[in-house]
Amino acid sequence: MDDQEALPVDTPYASGPRTFASDNWAGVHPEVLEALARANDGHAPAYGADPWTAEALRLLTEHFGRGTEAYFTLNGTGTNVVGLQSLLRPYEAVVCAEGAHIAVDECGAPERYLGSKLLTVATPDGKLTPELADSVITGVGDEHHVQARVVSITQSTEVGTVYTVDEISALADWTHARGMYLHLDGARIANAAAALDVDFGAFGQSAGVDVVSFGATKNGALGAEAVITFRAESDTGLRFVRKQSMQLSSKMRFVAAQFVALLNDGLWLRSARHANEMARYLGERASAVPGVELAYPVQANGVFAVLPVAVTAALQVEWPFYL
Amino acid sequence: MDDQEALPVDTPYASGPRTFASDNWAGVHPEVLEALARANDGHAPAYGADPWTAEALRLLTEHFGRGTEAYFTLNGTGTNVVGLQSLLRPYEAVVCAEGAHIAVDECGAPERYLGSKLLTVATPDGKLTPELADSVITGVGDEHHVQARVVSITQSTEVGTVYTVDEISALADWTHARGMYLHLDGARIANAAAALDVDFGAFGQSAGVDVVSFGATKNGALGAEAVITFRAESDTGLRFVRKQSMQLSSKMRFVAAQFVALLNDGLWLRSARHANEMARYLGERASAVPGVELAYPVQANGVFAVLPVAVTAALQVEWPFYL
Amino acid sequence: MDDQEALPVDTPYASGPRTFASDNWAGVHPEVLEALARANDGHAPAYGADPWTAEALRLLTEHFGRGTEAYFTLNGTGTNVVGLQSLLRPYEAVVCAEGAHIAVDECGAPERYLGSKLLTVATPDGKLTPELADSVITGVGDEHHVQARVVSITQSTEVGTVYTVDEISALADWTHARGMYLHLDGARIANAAAALDVDFGAFGQSAGVDVVSFGATKNGALGAEAVITFRAESDTGLRFVRKQSMQLSSKMRFVAAQFVALLNDGLWLRSARHANEMARYLGERASAVPGVELAYPVQANGVFAVLPVAVTAALQVEWPFYL
Amino acid sequence: MDDQEALPVDTPYASGPRTFASDNWAGVHPEVLEALARANDGHAPAYGADPWTAEALRLLTEHFGRGTEAYFTLNGTGTNVVGLQSLLRPYEAVVCAEGAHIAVDECGAPERYLGSKLLTVATPDGKLTPELADSVITGVGDEHHVQARVVSITQSTEVGTVYTVDEISALADWTHARGMYLHLDGARIANAAAALDVDFGAFGQSAGVDVVSFGATKNGALGAEAVITFRAESDTGLRFVRKQSMQLSSKMRFVAAQFVALLNDGLWLRSARHANEMARYLGERASAVPGVELAYPVQANGVFAVLPVAVTAALQVEWPFYL
Repeated sequence: MDDQEALPVDTPYASGPRTFASDNWAGVHPEVLEALARANDGHAPAYGADPWTAEALRLLTEHFGRGTEAYFTLNGTGTNVVGLQSLLRPYEAVVCAEGAHIAVDECGAPERYLGSKLLTVATPDGKLTPELADSVITGVGDEHHVQARVVSITQSTEVGTVYTVDEISALADWTHARGMYLHLDGARIANAAAALDVDFGAFGQSAGVDVVSFGATKNGALGAEAVITFRAESDTGLRFVRKQSMQLSSKMRFVAAQFVALLNDGLWLRSARHANEMARYLGERASAVPGVELAYPVQANGVFAVLPVAVTAALQVEWPFYL
Repeated sequence: MDDQEALPVDTPYASGPRTFASDNWAGVHPEVLEALARANDGHAPAYGADPWTAEALRLLTEHFGRGTEAYFTLNGTGTNVVGLQSLLRPYEAVVCAEGAHIAVDECGAPERYLGSKLLTVATPDGKLTPELADSVITGVGDEHHVQARVVSITQSTEVGTVYTVDEISALADWTHARGMYLHLDGARIANAAAALDVDFGAFGQSAGVDVVSFGATKNGALGAEAVITFRAESDTGLRFVRKQSMQLSSKMRFVAAQFVALLNDGLWLRSARHANEMARYLGERASAVPGVELAYPVQANGVFAVLPVAVTAALQVEWPFYL
Repeated sequence: MDDQEALPVDTPYASGPRTFASDNWAGVHPEVLEALARANDGHAPAYGADPWTAEALRLLTEHFGRGTEAYFTLNGTGTNVVGLQSLLRPYEAVVCAEGAHIAVDECGAPERYLGSKLLTVATPDGKLTPELADSVITGVGDEHHVQARVVSITQSTEVGTVYTVDEISALADWTHARGMYLHLDGARIANAAAALDVDFGAFGQSAGVDVVSFGATKNGALGAEAVITFRAESDTGLRFVRKQSMQLSSKMRFVAAQFVALLNDGLWLRSARHANEMARYLGERASAVPGVELAYPVQANGVFAVLPVAVTAALQVEWPFYL
Repeated sequence: MDDQEALPVDTPYASGPRTFASDNWAGVHPEVLEALARANDGHAPAYGADPWTAEALRLLTEHFGRGTEAYFTLNGTGTNVVGLQSLLRPYEAVVCAEGAHIAVDECGAPERYLGSKLLTVATPDGKLTPELADSVITGVGDEHHVQARVVSITQSTEVGTVYTVDEISALADWTHARGMYLHLDGARIANAAAALDVDFGAFGQSAGVDVVSFGATKNGALGAEAVITFRAESDTGLRFVRKQSMQLSSKMRFVAAQFVALLNDGLWLRSARHANEMARYLGERASAVPGVELAYPVQANGVFAVLPVAVTAALQVEWPFYL
């Protein structure tokens, strides 16, 4: 379920059968489209000074708690760059897993636009621990080395595993004790929450996370993300960083309205649960096929299986997926 | 009609009366919303390998001609940065008008993310000429100076004026004769085309423009822009630049579908003509008010008037606009 | 005396007659070379943990006062970039004169490597005032605009004029009252001090300057510059910024030894006075020539004269200078 | 012999005994100082239009062959950044060894100032092979991934090993066959040449290397480096990149004169041979101590030994070295 490998030629797609390539292949939840239509009501101030943006912030604050600040953004890479930039000085670095999206799937945007080195570490299951993070931090105080300042984790991870709230808290305590920050790339934060049966707000300030990249697109939105932080804008400069980083939407109400749709009435949870169930079902059925083995336990909505070549070829005729 | 000044406090907005602040305050054309709903049909490949993206490219090629390449993007600032980046080496600079959007309204994104200096020149009416551009180019071949490589113009300009096709061609000839490129920021390209009664394709390769930032958002889209170029991707690297510059949409079909809606059946033109007519009407009525003078002729959909203080205060009670 | 225009072909130079092109054409003061030889005594720690670096800092502190921090660097452009970087967040901008070295003679290094926009203002004599600086600051608090954070002045200026200590203090008060910083590009700081008959330390923290780019190269050194600041390194991160910005010398003692030579025994002042006297003499003699007029008063060691074409041609046969 | 770890407190240094910390602790060869004095003869054009620069280029061309271009620079990090920048587009990456200087000892300058990701690979002995380089190149043609464009090797390596000319040629053939470039970080190029008993020119275009970072500082210079390339400046823009990257010396003749001193009369070779012999002697004597083992064979002038704790403590009392 990686998003970037080329698909087999002659893949049938539009209006065709369901596929298992990526959650980005899915469409938009109908309730989100309806919300867009409702938001299309007369004029409204641009750039976020509109009532939908205010309402989305109010709803997010219900989950993440008092002091939540939300900066709506346009895509996942931009969200990570904006959020991380609010935490870093030029010579500071980010510790992350070797397979982290920021390290391998963003075409070098963090290096080029943050200007920061990523200190990557191999992990058994896509998850960082204090010990793993510690293993790549060297040269503290030495001007020849970048200074590790942020630990970035992905929830759920790039291989479909999920951090427990306690695991996140332990990482937060450890990073803060070293004067560092904890960033959470929540491109699939809803799936993780559904998998653990907790509110996604459990992955925010209550667990010690400093900045969350909140992804709604994979949760049924058309294109809606947010940088969530718990510090005042005077400290983070986030409004400016978002604009300068090309992530400010002019007709912001239509980004915010997607959040309102997902957060109202638990649509985010229903949508995530459905995706997780389908993944679990796929994982069960796949691992029942002779010769097929799951590479990682299916904890949220990612399924990574090791398939015999013959099975792969047979399956891709009808249901494209990534190798 | 500048987009960024603070509005008077207590501005009534949602579901309230129409305002004259910016075209970004407008909503989405209903036909665009319908197109989004139609595109929401089953699974489709992410990142542009879908039939809506192919169709949008086909329609754009009808206007701009053979060899057109289109890279759909997320907002105007990002579009300018991506398009300009495909034309520049690190030490090369961009010549633009003093009031150009890239120079004053993008929070320094060009400097920070292109890394390029903007060589700005004062203009009488927002429009560059070869003579004006020439006046800020110095130190050619001298390593202490940035090397001017791109001339960037805005159509229609930030003060609402419009370049004729001949004026653009003259600039293109001049830039090419110097080994330079011509970039056109077309955030309001449809309004300019409607004002001149030409196809917007007239502002592309036939006029010698090398890269167009094509803005659909101000033309009735929800959020849809494109970098248009006429060179092969192997030369421009645009696919990579777009991704790295945080302007790649995962559910691309929904960006492309907005273009399809606007380009099919002339919606782009109807929408632009309507906006221009409203602007002309506003300009006429405004200039009929004693003491009010238009700062620039109303050529497309921008109206800039000089108002007595008392008139300003009285008007803003009901219809917010920018000072 | 600008450093970058091409010289007439067939210029006689080495071992030839003295020229009036730039102070960079001059060699190294013999006492500086002797100091290099003296410093070449056995092994010494690299990167600044050596006694010459300590001694140079001690001497600079005698001039600038308690709390002075000095970071030795390699050239003027690098010094400006390092010093400014310690004062700026990504979306913040620098106000400077239109003809400032950072704006026109550094090949765009500030834009590319700081990532910051320079807000330039035309000046009658190369000098900024609070009023001039204020005239280019707009959009405060508005996310669409860069936020002016630093005012940068050059002492002596690019056209040879000199700020009085009071003029600098007034600018410092004004910038600090706005929550901004004052940076002084002191590529010719010694000439300015000699011209005003004050210690160069008068252009530092006592006048309210936050960061000084201290240039020793034009004062008789081989290649030695320094970022001088009065804040603790924990706030500025300057050691890291210098290394990352490619301005850290490995055999630092040989950079520091040049400072020691110039600061010991008043060599800096003798050298600067001599240069200023020669400039004054040149200015007097030049303005005595029929048809020649000085463009700016000769206050330090820069002479800018308006010459008739015939005089120019005749002079350049023997003494190259910049047009 | 790593350059950046903190030394034991109370290290005796200046005029004290010889140490084994780093070749940067060494002084300047007396013949280099004499050359500086000889170059200090009257006025000379700034920025490289002087006879010493011409002579240094002539001498380098004798070694590297026709078509050699040399851009003198100020330190090693800057030289690497300038040279690599001439080979890369924004979204292209550099393959290098995990312990490469550019990856671990330059405070993130390549990421920040090139904006490029480094794709690092673990090596048994500090040396890359085509197989090792190949193992980290993924996602070719895929816009989500940086595109590997340069392979960068260090000669001699950071652990003191040396590439044979054939090994370099094999890497060059492999990189060129993939449309990539080969960069050689020659901070200790002279030591490698002396170790192999070849001319350092053997590590240039004849072996297929595209750009060499030529380090003279560790070979006895005060501070003199160069970017060596074999393509015309119109392709590389190197003069501009050097200036913008803050690596242009104003009094260039004094950088060039150091090269002239080292290249005339074989001083570079005598100096490198002496350093290598001392390293071999140290390696032999060290490995004769009970409990001491060499971590890597001593091939040039680097010695990396595994010492028992007691030995370490005893030695550092008198001769500081890095752990």
